[in-house]
Parts: sequence; structure tokens; C-alpha cells
Amino acid sequence: LNVNKHSTCTTGSSSLSFRSHTCGELRPADVGEEVILCGWVQYLRQDLFVIMRDFSGLAQILIPQDEDKINLKTALCDLPPESVIRVKGTVRLRPDGQENKEMPTGEIEVLAESVEILNVCRKLPFEIKDFVKKSESLRMQYRYLDLRSSQMQYNLRLRSQLVMKMREYLCNVHGFVDVETPTLFKRTPGGAKEFVVPSREPGRFYSLPQSPQQFKQLLMVAGIDRYFQLARCYRDEGSKPDRQPEFTQVDIEMSFVDQAGIRGLIEGLVQYSWPVEKDPVSTPFPCITYEKAMKDYGVDKPDTRFAMKLMDISKTFHNTEIEFLKDALNQPGGCIQAICIPDGAKHLKGKDHESLKQTARTQFGQEVSVVLVKADGALKSPLNRLMPASAKQQLLQMAQARPGDLLLISAGTQECVRPLLGKLRLQCAELLEGSGVAVRDPSAFHFLWVVDFPLFLPKEEDPDQLESAHHPFTAPLPEDAHLLYSLPHKVRGQHYDLVLNGCEIGGGSIRIHKASDQQHVLETILKEDPSLLSHLLEALDSGAPPHGGIALGLDRFLSIIVGAPSIRDVIAFPKSFRGHDLMSRAPDFVSEDELKSYHISVNWPAGDEGNQEK
Amino acid sequence: LNVNKHSTCTTGSSSLSFRSHTCGELRPADVGEEVILCGWVQYLRQDLFVIMRDFSGLAQILIPQDEDKINLKTALCDLPPESVIRVKGTVRLRPDGQENKEMPTGEIEVLAESVEILNVCRKLPFEIKDFVKKSESLRMQYRYLDLRSSQMQYNLRLRSQLVMKMREYLCNVHGFVDVETPTLFKRTPGGAKEFVVPSREPGRFYSLPQSPQQFKQLLMVAGIDRYFQLARCYRDEGSKPDRQPEFTQVDIEMSFVDQAGIRGLIEGLVQYSWPVEKDPVSTPFPCITYEKAMKDYGVDKPDTRFAMKLMDISKTFHNTEIEFLKDALNQPGGCIQAICIPDGAKHLKGKDHESLKQTARTQFGQEVSVVLVKADGALKSPLNRLMPASAKQQLLQMAQARPGDLLLISAGTQECVRPLLGKLRLQCAELLEGSGVAVRDPSAFHFLWVVDFPLFLPKEEDPDQLESAHHPFTAPLPEDAHLLYSLPHKVRGQHYDLVLNGCEIGGGSIRIHKASDQQHVLETILKEDPSLLSHLLEALDSGAPPHGGIALGLDRFLSIIVGAPSIRDVIAFPKSFRGHDLMSRAPDFVSEDELKSYHISVNWPAGDEGNQEK
Repeated sequence: LNVNKHSTCTTGSSSLSFRSHTCGELRPADVGEEVILCGWVQYLRQDLFVIMRDFSGLAQILIPQDEDKINLKTALCDLPPESVIRVKGTVRLRPDGQENKEMPTGEIEVLAESVEILNVCRKLPFEIKDFVKKSESLRMQYRYLDLRSSQMQYNLRLRSQLVMKMREYLCNVHGFVDVETPTLFKRTPGGAKEFVVPSREPGRFYSLPQSPQQFKQLLMVAGIDRYFQLARCYRDEGSKPDRQPEFTQVDIEMSFVDQAGIRGLIEGLVQYSWPVEKDPVSTPFPCITYEKAMKDYGVDKPDTRFAMKLMDISKTFHNTEIEFLKDALNQPGGCIQAICIPDGAKHLKGKDHESLKQTARTQFGQEVSVVLVKADGALKSPLNRLMPASAKQQLLQMAQARPGDLLLISAGTQECVRPLLGKLRLQCAELLEGSGVAVRDPSAFHFLWVVDFPLFLPKEEDPDQLESAHHPFTAPLPEDAHLLYSLPHKVRGQHYDLVLNGCEIGGGSIRIHKASDQQHVLETILKEDPSLLSHLLEALDSGAPPHGGIALGLDRFLSIIVGAPSIRDVIAFPKSFRGHDLMSRAPDFVSEDELKSYHISVNWPAGDEGNQEK
Repeated sequence: LNVNKHSTCTTGSSSLSFRSHTCGELRPADVGEEVILCGWVQYLRQDLFVIMRDFSGLAQILIPQDEDKINLKTALCDLPPESVIRVKGTVRLRPDGQENKEMPTGEIEVLAESVEILNVCRKLPFEIKDFVKKSESLRMQYRYLDLRSSQMQYNLRLRSQLVMKMREYLCNVHGFVDVETPTLFKRTPGGAKEFVVPSREPGRFYSLPQSPQQFKQLLMVAGIDRYFQLARCYRDEGSKPDRQPEFTQVDIEMSFVDQAGIRGLIEGLVQYSWPVEKDPVSTPFPCITYEKAMKDYGVDKPDTRFAMKLMDISKTFHNTEIEFLKDALNQPGGCIQAICIPDGAKHLKGKDHESLKQTARTQFGQEVSVVLVKADGALKSPLNRLMPASAKQQLLQMAQARPGDLLLISAGTQECVRPLLGKLRLQCAELLEGSGVAVRDPSAFHFLWVVDFPLFLPKEEDPDQLESAHHPFTAPLPEDAHLLYSLPHKVRGQHYDLVLNGCEIGGGSIRIHKASDQQHVLETILKEDPSLLSHLLEALDSGAPPHGGIALGLDRFLSIIVGAPSIRDVIAFPKSFRGHDLMSRAPDFVSEDELKSYHISVNWPAGDEGNQEK
């Protein structure tokens, strides 16, 4: 048996290959064609057909029943699923009535002339069928089998195509330069989430950076003008759900540009690289300020696929006698706010109310009042008998509530009420969807820019001290720049976040390009040791152009596009939430001897010495 | 002054920017055009002109001499070089006779109407002029200035373009899938050159892999069919000249392919991505066996830009009475070989002979005989009086030596003589070029495949034991496969190296795809613990397709294309040969406190404790 013939295609998926065609591409137009297919045995049917699979899809192979091909039949019929074969045969139409409309190749089959068994498969831990449910840990341990699923094949191929389109847009359309920056770098001040890498010099460590922030700015100083990179970044956060210790960002920086320029670039980038099979994205994306986002949605990354906005109903309770509401209004910055859940009285049950109250209590230490608007417009709530009729009327009007709706009311400072209701708004959407109400269209993609963030925030541990809201390199808004030297806490920054369906998928800023401003921010405002960033300060002083940039989180962006529940579904070999590779069992023990050249040794926790040998 | 107007270009290098044009693109066709340029002050001339630079080149700005623009003149004339400005003005032809033919924009100049100073530059450690020579360490310390040079701009932009073309070829022409693989992985058995990365679990370490070898094979098992990645790889070799601790390889793997398929793919890749400004590359590349390369060039990566091949002249000395030659011939595998240096008698002087002999002695522990062929055909050499006339005649004939040539003769075992003469051949080329003889055309690019390497080599420390010549995953040549179980040392592998101008720029192989073969190689031949690679063995047993691949060293490849003396010249932020980042001073000390969460501590060498704090 010798089908060892090269494909005659010079381009496309079967170029330079043993096969002439892929399984999934055969159509009635190919009838009569002699083809060579390579792939996996999906299953056998009636000792008559082999359903054969490659990345492109399935094809039905008809096993010849002739006496002189009996060996071929025997070989195939004994073959375990997922064995690898090469089949030479002729495409023919399936007999009338035997077409399979569900299958893209369902009108044809391939009459096998010869078959070569390239590899026999052992008994697998799970079947490669889309309907077979596997546990997450089994999927990770046998990732090379899990990736054979059509969903994972789609995800990885879409990722590759999307990234390719992004590169074409940046390089070919806008003249960006793809520059690789080092990942073995110096630890950044306070970089608690940076992995360390021991060097062969005692006590000296490299660090795996969380982003190429310094390098991208240095490239602007270097006159590269337009830089981009699909950058591998590292973040050691221990165990956090749906975070990966290494991840990829689309990293972009431009000289001689303002906010509008960067935003326009990214809108074009998303539009250009958007999968053709999805509804096209329209631009420009809506843009709201941080203040407006917090006011309407209680969060800086609003999911704008649904309304249920926050409403201030303080006025309703202006003269209230209800003690806790009065107290709230009397404190500085106190307010009473509400969200209205349309049809919430109908769909949300007692246990839903409880879980909402639970969230308010455990995550915010706050109470929330649940008010149902009955069919006749009456309120069902402990507040009901404490409120005069006029206040009830006003409440319904201000909250735009109709019969059947549900109101969630929270009282306290704005800083507390907004995030609380922002959180409950999302939880209500989930609860409603859980009971079958369509709140968010799963095929909708709502992009949103959020801008005008505060440049500095009070430190949690010491509110008299300021820290950067994002990072110390963000430039102030031009109209706020003078405040940098007088009222820094009032300065808004030229930072912008890109939000998609309520997830932050990117963020960036126009940077400070004058050394004196940067030094003032680091030294005077943030009280940091500027010597740790002396190379950056020197660079800014060496003819730094005005510049700005952005970074998009590729893994998250893709997971939203394909509708995956986790970013693990768009990464070929992800780590578990504990940071483990379950297939190879990394991280693993390393012998003391191997650590010697790095001048380090392990501090074993007491009682754990036994683990030491490996 | 307000020139804060956006470019009207929607594509190209000035899209979305403050500028309307780049400095280097202006031509007589643009005369009359109002332009906005952004860039660096290269220098001032006669208080009349500013020569302004951006990445694209230089433009001459004419400073208006009108009384009402005196402020503009004053501001510009005080400006230090490398300050950043934005100029609005009108393009006009230079007056007759003032054109500069050396300058692409030399026919025009821009009459400034307004200028905005975007950043003032301090006094720099060196000038940004191509003719200014800087030390390597100064270049590295101020890399952001060094990158402003036209050569470094060219190198980085060429790198970006070449990589983009490679991606287009792989993705768009041949259907490859760009897949990212992890860099935090498990230590490979015997991976002495792998950096370790401590995790938060005591004693457990990730490792930064030297290549994605395991992952690329697993992706084939996963049915990805065609994978590529511009992969960041890591190798800790301590201090080695012109090696980098992190480097980039073009990593490729394909299913259902043979050697010819991969070679064809790579030939197409090089041709497709080759810089348009260079002479085109012709394909297919020549291909020679490892045996032939060693025989003719004494090395497995021959520089075929020049001849001077090794010649076996044993026959000449068949009956010789010269003691050391006789001894050499009498030992098993003994031979006498020579290389002939055309015109070497004329160009190579006494000190050159000495340095050649020195190389032979210090690097190979061997003597080499230098024989000059005088104008009359007589030999000048200590051997001369010991050789009969007929032998001399035969020697000249066998070595194809003509008057004026120089012969280098070495006697010993083939294993010793070949590498020695291979090395001296290269040294002679350098010596000749140093004295002005054109040996290798600097614009020539000689690609060469080297194939049929031995699969295993005797271990240096224990010659009875075998080790992989490349790695344990390489498949044997089909015609040698049966020897795997009987005479493994005789097996040739399906490995191929791609050589360019005498440098190995890539290597790959068809892989073992059957678990039983792989297990035999690991366990029986290499005596390795197969449990360390159990996941790979299991994967091969799970329906692995036949597959093969290659990895190209991108940094080396580019440095040869641009003619750079070091790979540091094609990397934006390289490390010094000691592995240091001289700009940021990485690697650096990390406090004990910061190491605590990784359960490691530093073993300070005796007497070095003082370094500990910081």
C-alpha cells in the first residue's frame, strides 16, 4: 500500500501535505475526483462506513464490500475510534435519500480504494464528541484531546484569524512597527505581583513584567513613532478565578496623538478584525465619563446592554420620618437611590430577594429595601405603612416604576450606595435570566469608552495620601493640568477604558511626556523614590514626544466574542485557577542541586521537610 | 499658537496624528501644500534653517526672517538639538543651486508659519548622528537614544515587516494557525539551561522553556494540523558572547507532511518574506548530507560562499617515510587532508601562519603544516626536503594547488582532521578579507539544507552511551528505522538544518509519532526516565498524526540579512553579554521580604553577606 503522494496544491490548507483535500471541504462539485484524505476515525457505522474527521469537519468513507478488498474492511472494522488513517478514494454522490442535511459534506461520500493506518489509538479517557460532558480537570489533564472538540478548534482558529487581522490593520493600514520587548526585566517599585527569576549572580533577580509599559514609552522616546506588540504579560496573583499567571495583551503606543486619535484607532481595529460571521460593529463607540458611569450604573465598566439605571430618589424622602432614611440623608454626601427592575415583582421570588439582601450585607455591609409594586400600584414593603401616599406617588414617578416592577432602595453615602446598587443591578439581570427572562441579548456587543477618570485616589490604608488611579505615567486633562501643583486630588486624567458588555477589555492613556511633570507626580504627589525610575525620567528629558497608548486584554476580548464562560476556553494550554498545568504537572519540585547555580534555597514550612526530596 | 489639528489621512503613517505628513516623504510634487510636521531638531544651520527629523527622514525648515516672526526665530535658535517641535508651514522648492542631492527631500524646504515646542531636550551623552561612534555600553545604557539612529530604525522596521510577511505567508497562504503556548512550564529532564521561576507553593518551580517543542507536538495530537508561533524562548547560558537569555524563534509544526514538505514550506517562507530591496532568493535551496558537509567543509554548517574545500591527500603519502604522517595513516581512521588557499602564499604572512597553527594547537591539540607553493611551483615547507619529487607533484595535483597558493595539511583521524581544517578554512577567509582580498561577497546569501544527521552520538563523558544528536523526538530515516532496535548508532535521523552563509539559522525534524518507538528511544537507547515525559507518551498513544516541524532563529536570521555584527543590533532592548540590562540595571537585588512569598532565600557566598541588604 503506497499512497505516499504529495498534494498538488501549492497554497491553502492541503499544500505540501500527504492529503489532497480536507475532509470538510468536499461537495457535490467534487464528485468523480480522486482524493486523499488524512484524519481521525470518528466512528464506524454498520461496518459499512467510516466517519472520518479532520480540523475542517467530517467526511463519510464508504468501505468497499468486494471480496478482494476484504483486508481493507477487516483493518478498518477493528480500528479503535481516534485512530489516524489516510484514505485514497473517489468522491461520489450519496444514494438518493441517504443525504445528511445536518452535515456540510452530507451530500457526498468517498468510496475507499486504499487505506493506510497511520497510528492506532488507545482507549481514551473520554470520547471526542461535542455532546460528551467532561469535568474541567479532565479537560485540562488531557488538553490535547479536549482541543479536538469543534468548539475549541473554532476558538483557537478564530483567535489566530482575529490576531492576524489586527496585525494587518496596525502594520499595513497604519504603519505600526511590531517590536518585541524583554520579559526578563527589573522589578518595578512595589511590584508585588511580579514573578521573580533568579540569575546566576547571588541575590540578583530578574522580574517578569506585568506589561511592557516602560518599554513602550521608551520606544516613543526612541522615535519608533508607532509601536505595537502582542505582548506576553505575567501577573502572580496566587489563586484567583479566571485569571492566568501569563496572559496576552495587544499593546499599542503612538507619538503625536491625542485621546481621540487613540480611540479612533481602536474603533477601527475592532471593526477591521471583527469576525465576519458576526453582526458588524458600528463606530464610533459611545463614550461616557467616569462620573456619569458611576452615577447611572454604579460602576466604571457598565454593562449597557440593559437599562435599570440608578436613580436618585432623595427628594422623595426629603421630609421623611423614617429613621434610617433620615439618618442617611443627614450625613455628608448622603443620598437615597434606587433601581427599578421591570417585571421584577413577577419574576423575582423570595429567595431572590434574600440573595440580593445577602450581597448588600456581606459585600457592602449595607441594608437594601425591596419594594414590590403590586398590580394596583400599591407598594408591598415594610416601608409602605411608614410613607404618606404622596411620597409613594412621587417614588413611583421618580423611579419610573410601573405595576409589576420591583424597586431596590439603598440609603447612605454616594460612595457606598452607587457601587452597591451597581452590583445589585447586575445580580438582578442574572437572576432574571436564570428564570428565563431575556434581559441581555447574547448576540449583542456593546462597546463603550469610559473617560475622565480621577488621576489620583486616596490610599485605602491612609486616605490622606494619594495613589495613582491607574499608573503614575498618565497625563492630566489639559484643563486640569494647573491643579496638579495645587489640588492634585481634583485632577482628572487622560485615561480611557474600553468596556465590552460590562467587562473592561482595555485601558490606556495619554502619558506625561515632560520629565518635570513626571518627577513632580512621582516625588511630590506619590512620595515614591524617583531613583527607581531614573532611566525613564532621563528618557523623558531627552526629547520625548507627546505620546499615548492602550492595551487590550486579548484573552478576555476573545472569550466575550466566542461567548466562552472562561478565558481558559480561548487559551491553548491554560493553567488551572491554582496556577497549575494539570497535564505536565507544573510547577514541580526542583532538586537542591539544580538551584545551586542560582544561589537560592527553599524555605520549607515547619513540618513540610519531607517534601524536600523529589 | 494652535496647530492642534488632526491629520486628515485615514490610513498610512500620518493617520490619526498631529502631523499631516512625515518629514521624509516631502517631494517637489508637494510644493504649495500646507503641511504640519512633528519631529526632532537635528541641527540648526546659519540661524536660518532647522533640519528636522522623524523616523522617515529629514526635512529642511526655513525660519522666516520677517520682523513679526522674530519670536519664532528666537525660540528656534535657542533650542537644543533633539528637542521636539511641531511646525506648520508651506512646502516650496529650494532656490536654484541650493538643492541637496544627497537628501531625499533635498529639492524642497518648508517655510515655517508657526512652530510649537513640544519638549526641550537636555544635553545628551552623545549626538544622534550616524557618524558618531559610541561604545557598546553607552549605546546600551541610553538605548532609547541609540535607537534613533537610522541603522537601528531600519533594523527594527525591517524586522517588523519581515515578520509580518512571514505571518501572511503562513496564515493566509498556507492556512497555519497562530497558537500561543505557555512560557511558565515544567522543567524538562536535564534542562540545565532553563531559568526557574519560584511559585507560591514551597519548593515548586516553573521553568522558562528553551522552545515550545512539547507544546507544538501536542498541538498536532490535538488536530490543530498546522501551527506556528513567533515564540519567545529562554536559555540560561551564563555569559556567552552574542547569546541572549531570551530570544525569538519562528516555530512551525505540520501534520501529514514529510521532509520535502517542510523544506518546501520554508523555502517559500524565505522567498515570500525576503526584503524587496535585496536580490531575490532562488529556490529550492541546495541540500547536502551531513556526511558530505563534514567531508567537504569539516563542519555541519558550511559557508558555501567560497570554495577552499577539504581534500583527502592520504594517497600522496601512501609510502611516506615522514614519521608523523606515517603514524597518522597507520591509526584506525587515519588520514591526511589539506585545504588550498588560492593566492595564500602571496596574502598570508608569517604572523597569519602562526595564528593558524595557534588555532590548531589550542583548539584541537594538533599540528598543522603550512606549505607555500612558490612561483616556480616549488614547495616552501619543512616537508619539502622529506618528499620525493613525484609526491610533491601528486600533492599539487590532488590539492589542485597552483603557484602562489598556500596549503594547510593536517594528519590524524578523520574525526579530528575535518573539524580542524573546517575551522582553519574559515579563519583563512577572515585573514584574507582582513588583508583586502574579496573572498565572500557581502551581498551574497547562500542558503543550504544539511540533512541525514546521525540520530544518536556517543556521549562525551561515556562513549559507550548514546545521546540524541538533536533531541529525542526526531524520527529515524525510513530506510534506517529497522536499525533502531539493532544498531541505533547507525541510524540517521529525519533532521534538517537550514544554514545561511555558514550560520545555522534553523533546524527541525520529522518527529516520532508512535508511542512505542518514542518509549524505546527514551528508555532503551537514551536510558532516560520516561515518566518525566509520560504526558507526551500518552499523547502519542491517543491518535497522534505523523508530523514534523522546524524552528528558525529570528534574531540570527535578521542580523545576517542586515549585515549586523551582533544579534543585539536587531533586538530593541538586548541584554549585555553578561545578561544585564544596562539601562534599567536588571537583574537587581530583591528584598528578603519580597522573596518570602516564594519560600526561597539567597545563599550568599562567604564574605558577600554585605550585599544582602537593600
